[in-house]
Amino acid sequence: MSLNTIPNKSDIEDAILRIKPYLHVTPVLTCSAINNIAGCSIYFKCENFQKAGVFKARGATNTVFSLDEKDISKGVATHSSGNHAAALSLAASLRKSVAYIVMPLNSNKAKIRAVENYGGIISFCEPSLEAREKTLINVISSTHAVEVHPYNDPRIIAGQATATTELLEKVDGLQILMAPVGGGGLLSGTALAASYFGKNIQVIAGEPEGANDAFRSFYSKTLIPSITPNTIADGLHTSLGIITFEIILKHVSAIMTVDDAAIIDAMRLIWERMKIIVEPSSAVPLAVILKNKDRFKDKRVGVILSGGNVDIDNLPFNK
Amino acid sequence: MSLNTIPNKSDIEDAILRIKPYLHVTPVLTCSAINNIAGCSIYFKCENFQKAGVFKARGATNTVFSLDEKDISKGVATHSSGNHAAALSLAASLRKSVAYIVMPLNSNKAKIRAVENYGGIISFCEPSLEAREKTLINVISSTHAVEVHPYNDPRIIAGQATATTELLEKVDGLQILMAPVGGGGLLSGTALAASYFGKNIQVIAGEPEGANDAFRSFYSKTLIPSITPNTIADGLHTSLGIITFEIILKHVSAIMTVDDAAIIDAMRLIWERMKIIVEPSSAVPLAVILKNKDRFKDKRVGVILSGGNVDIDNLPFNK
Repeated sequence: MSLNTIPNKSDIEDAILRIKPYLHVTPVLTCSAINNIAGCSIYFKCENFQKAGVFKARGATNTVFSLDEKDISKGVATHSSGNHAAALSLAASLRKSVAYIVMPLNSNKAKIRAVENYGGIISFCEPSLEAREKTLINVISSTHAVEVHPYNDPRIIAGQATATTELLEKVDGLQILMAPVGGGGLLSGTALAASYFGKNIQVIAGEPEGANDAFRSFYSKTLIPSITPNTIADGLHTSLGIITFEIILKHVSAIMTVDDAAIIDAMRLIWERMKIIVEPSSAVPLAVILKNKDRFKDKRVGVILSGGNVDIDNLPFNK
Repeated sequence: MSLNTIPNKSDIEDAILRIKPYLHVTPVLTCSAINNIAGCSIYFKCENFQKAGVFKARGATNTVFSLDEKDISKGVATHSSGNHAAALSLAASLRKSVAYIVMPLNSNKAKIRAVENYGGIISFCEPSLEAREKTLINVISSTHAVEVHPYNDPRIIAGQATATTELLEKVDGLQILMAPVGGGGLLSGTALAASYFGKNIQVIAGEPEGANDAFRSFYSKTLIPSITPNTIADGLHTSLGIITFEIILKHVSAIMTVDDAAIIDAMRLIWERMKIIVEPSSAVPLAVILKNKDRFKDKRVGVILSGGNVDIDNLPFNK
C-alpha cells in the first residue's frame, strides 16, 4: 500500500487478520435508560476496553505488523503526548521491537507511565510542536527507527476501520454510524468501513465546538488547521491530515459540534447509567445525539466509544 | 419456604428461573494487568452492570415474585437509604406493584432519584434507626404492604445466590470465591451456592476494618452488631442478621479485613485498568487479595463485584 493512498476494501480485510491475534474484539453494549432519554437505539462499540484503553491500538498494531523485518528491527518512533504514544509502544512490544516516543515535558503522568509500562523509550522535550518535531528528527537520525504518524497514514486508517467492521458484524441494520473527530484517523476508518462493508449507512462525526477545525474544513472544503483548541476532549485537539480529510469529504455525511458542557453531561450519563469509564472525547457523539434528538429519532445508531483513558484524579464533574 | 430457614438447593434453582425474565445475566470479566499485579487469576462477576446497578436487584426480584397475588396487591415496603431501596422499587415495578420506601432525610440525592425513577413511593424521616423503624410501621399499618428485609430473609439470600450460580456456570475450576460482607445477604448466598453447586470452593469474605462486626462475630461465634461503622464502603455498614450469620458460620472459610486506603487503591485499580465503575464496597475483596498475595498465589479466584452506584461528584481519589 502506498503511503499516500486511501485504503481499499482488501487493505481493511488484511488489517482485520493482521491484528486479530493481538487485540481484543471489544464488546458492543446497549443501555435502555440512555435509549429512552435519546429516543433512538444506540449500539456502543466499547474501544475503552481495547488494549491500551483506546482504539489507537488497532492502527498502531496494523502498522507495526505491516513493516518488513528489516524496518521493524530498528524500531518505530513518533511524537505524542497521549494515546498514540501508548498504543505504538504496545504495538512495538507485541512485535518484540521497541518504540521511541518523543513526549513534551508537561505530559500527564498517567500517560508517561502507560508508555513506560509497554517498554517505550521516552525522549522528553519542551512542550511545543517545533521542539517535538526537532527532537523526533534527532531520535530517528540516531536510531533509524521508522516514523509512524498517529493518523495520516493508510495503515493507521485501515487499522482503525476494524472497530467498525466488528460492530457491523455484530449489529444488523445500523442507519447511522458516529465517531468523534480529531486528526480524523478513527473517523476516516469508520467512514471507509461503512462504505465498503455497510448498506446505506450515514456516517456523522461529533466534534467539540472548542476544536471545530474539522467542522470548518468540511463545510468550506478547505483544510483548516487546529490552531488554539480549547476543549475538555483532549483527544480531539489535532488537525486533520491530507489523507483523512480526503476520505472524510467523500464518505462522511455531516460533522456536528457540541460545547464542553454537553460533552460532560453525556460523559456523566455514560458513567452513571452504563457504569463504564470513557474519556471526554468518547462522549462527543452521544452529546451530539442528545442535542439533536429529532435527527436521530427512532434510528439505529452505532457509536464508537473511542477510549477510556481519563485522569481520575482530575475529573470534570462537580465543577 | 419458611422465613426463618436456610434456603436449600431447590430454593436457589427456583430463584434462578423466577428472576430470569427480568434481570441481566451479568458478564464475567478478566484483566491480565490486574492478574499480573495480584499473582492469581481473578474472574470478576460484574453486578455493577446488573439492573439498578447492584446485585440487590436479584434478591428483591426473587422476593417480590415469590409473593402471592393477594400479598403483592398491597405493595411492598422497607426502610433503606441505599441500594435496597432502589432494588426493591425496581422489583415492585417489574411486577406492576409498588414499593413504599422509608428513607432518611439526609439520603444521597442520586439514591433518591433512583427510587423515584423506579416509581417507589418515598416517606422521608429523621436519620435515626428508631425514626426509620417507626415510620415504616406507620407506612405498613396504613398500606398493608409486605415488609421486605434487605438481607435477613431466605428469599433475598436465594436471589443473591444466583450471581454465583451464573459465575460457576461460566468459569470452571474456581478454588476461591470472594464477596464483600455487610448484612451478609450476598455473602451467605454466595456461600450457599458454592456449597450446593461448586466443588471444594473456599468462600472468603472481605470486610472494611472500619466496619468489622462480621469479622468479630465470625471469630467469636457471637453475633456482634455494627455500632459505629466508619468506612468509605457505605454498602457495608449494616450488622449481620440471624439467618445470614448462621449460614456464614457454616459455609464461609474466612473473613479478612482491609483499611480504607487499601479499598480506595483497589477501586482505583479496577477503574483505571478495567475501565468499569464499581463502588467502594465492590473493591474490598480485591483489596484483600492485594494485601495477602501469598494466600491467593496462582489460585483461580471468583470475585463478586457487588455494584456500581457511586456519587461521581464525590469520589475518594486525589484526597
